[in-house]
Amino acid sequence: MSGYMGKLLTVDLTRGELGDEPLEPTWAHDFVGGAGYAARYLYDELGPDTDPLGPENTLMFMTGPLVGTRAPSCGRHEVCAISPLTGIWGESNSGGFWGAELKFSGYDGIVIRGRSQSPVWLSIVEGQVPTLHDAASLWGLGTYETQQRLRDEMDDQKLRVASIGPAGENLVLYSAIMNDHGRAAGRTGMGAVMGSKNLKAIAVRGRQRVPLADRQAFRLTTKHALQTVIDDITSQVYCQMGTASFVDMSMMWGNMPNKYWSQAQFDKATNLSGVTMMETILTRSVPCYGCAVACGREVTLKDTPYGVEVVDGPEYETVAMLGSQLLVDDLPGVAYAGHLCNRYGLDTISAGSSIALAYLLYDRGFITSADTGGLPLKWGDVEVAHTLLEMIALRKGFGDVLADGVKRISARYEAGDLAVHVNGLEPAAHDPRALSGMAIIYATSPRGACHMQGDMYAVDMGLTFPEVGIHPSGRFKTRGKSKVAAKVQDWRTLYNSAIMCVFVNPTAPVLAKLLSEVTGWSSDIVLWQRAGERIFNLKRAFNNRLGIRRGNDRLPERLFIPMSNGSKGRTPRMETLLGEYYACREWDWNTGKPTRDKLISLGLQEIAEELWA
Amino acid sequence: MSGYMGKLLTVDLTRGELGDEPLEPTWAHDFVGGAGYAARYLYDELGPDTDPLGPENTLMFMTGPLVGTRAPSCGRHEVCAISPLTGIWGESNSGGFWGAELKFSGYDGIVIRGRSQSPVWLSIVEGQVPTLHDAASLWGLGTYETQQRLRDEMDDQKLRVASIGPAGENLVLYSAIMNDHGRAAGRTGMGAVMGSKNLKAIAVRGRQRVPLADRQAFRLTTKHALQTVIDDITSQVYCQMGTASFVDMSMMWGNMPNKYWSQAQFDKATNLSGVTMMETILTRSVPCYGCAVACGREVTLKDTPYGVEVVDGPEYETVAMLGSQLLVDDLPGVAYAGHLCNRYGLDTISAGSSIALAYLLYDRGFITSADTGGLPLKWGDVEVAHTLLEMIALRKGFGDVLADGVKRISARYEAGDLAVHVNGLEPAAHDPRALSGMAIIYATSPRGACHMQGDMYAVDMGLTFPEVGIHPSGRFKTRGKSKVAAKVQDWRTLYNSAIMCVFVNPTAPVLAKLLSEVTGWSSDIVLWQRAGERIFNLKRAFNNRLGIRRGNDRLPERLFIPMSNGSKGRTPRMETLLGEYYACREWDWNTGKPTRDKLISLGLQEIAEELWA
Repeated sequence: MSGYMGKLLTVDLTRGELGDEPLEPTWAHDFVGGAGYAARYLYDELGPDTDPLGPENTLMFMTGPLVGTRAPSCGRHEVCAISPLTGIWGESNSGGFWGAELKFSGYDGIVIRGRSQSPVWLSIVEGQVPTLHDAASLWGLGTYETQQRLRDEMDDQKLRVASIGPAGENLVLYSAIMNDHGRAAGRTGMGAVMGSKNLKAIAVRGRQRVPLADRQAFRLTTKHALQTVIDDITSQVYCQMGTASFVDMSMMWGNMPNKYWSQAQFDKATNLSGVTMMETILTRSVPCYGCAVACGREVTLKDTPYGVEVVDGPEYETVAMLGSQLLVDDLPGVAYAGHLCNRYGLDTISAGSSIALAYLLYDRGFITSADTGGLPLKWGDVEVAHTLLEMIALRKGFGDVLADGVKRISARYEAGDLAVHVNGLEPAAHDPRALSGMAIIYATSPRGACHMQGDMYAVDMGLTFPEVGIHPSGRFKTRGKSKVAAKVQDWRTLYNSAIMCVFVNPTAPVLAKLLSEVTGWSSDIVLWQRAGERIFNLKRAFNNRLGIRRGNDRLPERLFIPMSNGSKGRTPRMETLLGEYYACREWDWNTGKPTRDKLISLGLQEIAEELWA
Repeated sequence: MSGYMGKLLTVDLTRGELGDEPLEPTWAHDFVGGAGYAARYLYDELGPDTDPLGPENTLMFMTGPLVGTRAPSCGRHEVCAISPLTGIWGESNSGGFWGAELKFSGYDGIVIRGRSQSPVWLSIVEGQVPTLHDAASLWGLGTYETQQRLRDEMDDQKLRVASIGPAGENLVLYSAIMNDHGRAAGRTGMGAVMGSKNLKAIAVRGRQRVPLADRQAFRLTTKHALQTVIDDITSQVYCQMGTASFVDMSMMWGNMPNKYWSQAQFDKATNLSGVTMMETILTRSVPCYGCAVACGREVTLKDTPYGVEVVDGPEYETVAMLGSQLLVDDLPGVAYAGHLCNRYGLDTISAGSSIALAYLLYDRGFITSADTGGLPLKWGDVEVAHTLLEMIALRKGFGDVLADGVKRISARYEAGDLAVHVNGLEPAAHDPRALSGMAIIYATSPRGACHMQGDMYAVDMGLTFPEVGIHPSGRFKTRGKSKVAAKVQDWRTLYNSAIMCVFVNPTAPVLAKLLSEVTGWSSDIVLWQRAGERIFNLKRAFNNRLGIRRGNDRLPERLFIPMSNGSKGRTPRMETLLGEYYACREWDWNTGKPTRDKLISLGLQEIAEELWA
C-alpha cells in the first residue's frame, strides 16, 4: 500500500458546504501532488470561459507527499487557479509552516469553489469539524493583524494562518496570500482569487503524523539529505546574508535590473546587499518548517520614521524590485516597502514592477502629476513608493491604475512596448540579457515570466543535477541551452509538486529516494523526472486551451536593447533558443501545442484527444 | 490689395446643401493656406468628442496661394481632418493636377461636413453650379475606373478626379484619396473619412487664372526658380530613376528597413532600385502640374501574369514597404502591389507595414494559418501580399484585421511591442537608427511617424536652406540636431501650406519672394518661416487637446535595438534629442504643450487662452 493516499477538503462557498474527497490515486501517482495534482484536477473544471475573478474559478491549496515530513525544506504549499493577472495557469508556492500544518490536520489540500455572500474564514483544526466563520470583523485588516486575531480567537498561538490583506479584498491583480510571518504565495494574483470568493483566511492546526511507506529508510535518507544541505556553502551564505547576498554578484553580471530595466548599473546597489543588511538592520535569520538554511530575514526599523520596530526583512527580489528598479538604495526604506507588501498582501515583484514602470512613464512624460493626484514620481524616491503601495492595496486614486499590473498599466497609457512582462507576469530580478537560460525560461514558463520553474539563473551560477542532465554552461551560450532549460523546468516542476523548496537541495537520486520512501513508488529518477515533464506538458495544454500559442513564447522587445557592462551588450538569440526548445520538447511549431504523440507518450491520452480534437 | 482672397466651397452632405464662403483674411495671412489654413479652420470645430468616422468630422480639401501658379511643383492639394487611424490631426497631400484644377475652378478649398444618406459624388466645374450627384453606380469601383467613368459621363477627358476606392468605402483606416493617375493623399486615412461620409469622388475643371499680386515680378522669379530646379542634379536623378534611385544608398546606410525593421541588410534590394526599374520595366517619367522633376513612374507589366499592361510605377516608399520589408525583390511583383494600392485606394506605407507586421507575427507564431484563413505568410512571398491587399480593401476575412493598421493589429495579438508606429502612424522607410534627425522628427510630428514635415533624411544627405538655419550635420549626431529638425519642420510646414512639393526646391529667399509676389505680403523670409512655426505649434495645440503629451513624443522600443552594418549599431539618444527639442520649441516639459508665452509670441492668443485655461 502506498504511503500517499490522503484526502482533500472541498469547500463550496456559495452554499456553505464542506466535505472530504479522497485523492484520486492514479492522479497522485502521475502528478505527484502540489501544483501537479492541482493542474490535473483543475484541467477538468476550468477553461476559456472561466472568469478568474468569478465564482466559477476554483482555488486549490495543495501540499504534496513530502510536505510535513522531515525531508529538508518541505514545509511548503501551492496555491493554484486561473490567474486574474495573466488569464492563464496561475500558481504560487509559499514557505513557512502553514503547508506542513495543513498536512498535520489530516488534509493534503483544499478545493475552494463558489463565492461566499459575505466575508468568511475557514478553520481546519484536527479534532474539530472544518468550519466557515463570519469574517466581517476581519475585513480590511492587514495580514499580521488577521493572524493574531485568529490566534487569539482560537486561543492557540501556534495556529497557522494563511490570509489575504486589503489588496486581495480589493482584487489587486497581483495580491498575495500571506501566511505565518511574511511568507507569501505571491505571484499570479492568487490573493485576488481568494478575495473574489470573500474568503479572508484559512487557519490550520493539527498533530497527525505524515504517513510514510518506509519510515525507517526515510529517516536515514533524510539524515543524509539534511547533511548535504547543511554542508553546502550556499546554506551558510543564505543563512547569514539571505538571498540578497546575491546583490553584488548579480549587479556585476548585469542580472539585477535598474531603473525599470533601462540602466546597466546602479553603483549604490551594494547598499541593498545582504552583507549591508547583516551589518546594519538584521536581527536574526528565520527558517521555514524543517529548513536548515533559514534564508528568511528579520530586521529592525527602530531608528526610522516608519513607526514599526521589527519586521520581516526583504529578500533579493524585493531589494531589486522596490530598490534598484527605482534607483533607491535606502535599505530601511526598501525593507519598509517590503513590510507594507506583506501587511497589505502584495506580491513584491509585481508591485515593484508596477511602481517602477509608473516612475518610468512619469519620467518620460506619459503620465503627469495630474494623473498621479499630485504625487511626483522621481527615481530614488522610496517614500512615494510607500504611499503608492498603500494606494494600490486600497485601489485609491492612481493606485487603482497600478493595481492592475504592468501589462494593463502600459496599455492604458499606450506604452505597451515599455512594459516588461511575459504573458502578463512581470519577471523576477534576473535579466535575460545577462543569462541566456533565463530568456528561454521566461518565454516558456506556464505562468509567464517565472523564475521558479526553473531557476536557470542558478544553473548558470553553477547549480548542477548531473543525474538528470542539468549542467551549467556559459551564461551567454545559446546552442544546447534550451535542452538544459527544459530539464530544469521538468525537475523544478517535480519540486513544486513534491513540494520541496528550490534553495539548497539534496542530489537528484536522494530526492527520488525520499519520494519513493514516502509514497512506496519507484525510486527510479527517470520516472520522477518524467512526472515533472508530464506535469509541465499538462500545464502547457491547460494554457493552450486558454489561447497560448508559439507567439506567446517570447520576451518583450525592450529586453533586446543591449546593456553595457555586466551583460556586455549581449542579447538573447531567441530564434535559436526557441527552435531548440521546441525540438527537445516535441512541441508543434505551428500551434505551440505539445504534439499528440508527445502527450500520449507521457500518458496524457485524454488530454491529447481533447487538445487535438 | 492682396492677390490671395479666395473662397471655399462648403458642402453639407447631411442636408445636401452647398455654399460659398470667403477665406478669412487674417487666417489666410497667418496660416497661409493648405494644411495651415485647414488647421486653424478645424481647430474651431473639431475636438476630443469628434468621432473621426462620424458625420461630425469635417474633411477639408485645400490648395494654397502658390497652387496653380507657374511656381515650380505647385500643383498639390492638402486633405485634412481628424485621422481615424491615429485619432489626432490628420493631413495628407497629393500631387498631380487636381489641386491646380480646383484653383482654376475658382475655389481655394472645399469644406465637407455631415454624411450623405447614400453615395454621392461632387462636381465643381467652372461655369456650372457645384453639384452633388448620385454615386450608386460608382460604389465599389476602383479609382482608375471611377475617374474614367466620370470623365465619360461629363464628356470631358481633362476632368480631374479625386476619389476613394473600395478601401475608403470599407473604412480601411489607412485608405487614401487618389487623384489623376496614381497620385495619392495617402497618409492618415483621409480616404476612410471620405468613405464615412458616403462621398465617392470630387471632379473638378476650370480655366480661371490664379490671381497674382505682382504678375510681372512673379514671372521673372518663377523663371529663375524653375532654372534652379532644372539645374539641380537631383532633378535629373529623380526624372530618370524616380525616388527609388535612393534604394542602394539607403540600404548602404541602414536607412531602408527590411523584414519589418528586424534585419540590417537585404542584399537583393538592388533589384528594387530605380536603376533596375529604369533598365527593365520603366516606360516613362510622369510629371505633376508645373513640375520640372517628373519623379512619377510609368512601368509595364506586360510580361507578368498580373493581367495589366502599363501601370503607375512604385516610388521609394512603396518598393521598401511592399518590397524589402517583406524580403521581396521581385520588382514587377512590387509594382503590381503598388498598383493594387492605387486601384483600391490604400496608403502603400501603412498597407505594406500592416502586411509586413503580419508576416512577422506569422513567423513568430502569434498568428497561424487558422487566423489567416489558410494563407501562409512567408517572407519573400509577394503573391500573398497581393491577395492580402485585396482582402484588406474589401475587409474580407483576415484582411479585416489588417485593415486597422499596425497599432490595432498588434494590440489584437498582444504584440504591441513588435509594432512600429508613432501615435498610430506607421513610419516611412527611413530608419531613425540610421539618421538621428529622423528620430526627433518621427517623435514630434503632428501626424505621427511622418517623414514629410520634415524631411531630415534629406538634410542628413546634404539638403540645405542656409537662410533659415537648415544645414546638414553628421547622421548620427545628437547635439544640435533637434534645433535643425525644428527648423525643418517649420519650413516644410510652410510648404504644405503654400503648397509646394518638397522634392527639389528653389532657395528660401526665392520661395519667400514667390509667396510675396502672389499674395502681396512681405517677402521677409523670417515672417514666412515664422508662419510655419505658428502653424506647427497650432497643430500641436490641436493634438494636445486630443490627449497628446510629452510621452507621445517617442519612438517604439524596437527601434532602439541596434542593427549591424549600415547604422553601425547606433541608436537615437532620445533623451538629449527631446530635451534640446523642447528647449528650442519652448514647449512645457511637464504637459507637452507649447508654453503660453510661446503661443502668444506667435500671435496665437486665443489658442493660448483655451489650451492653458
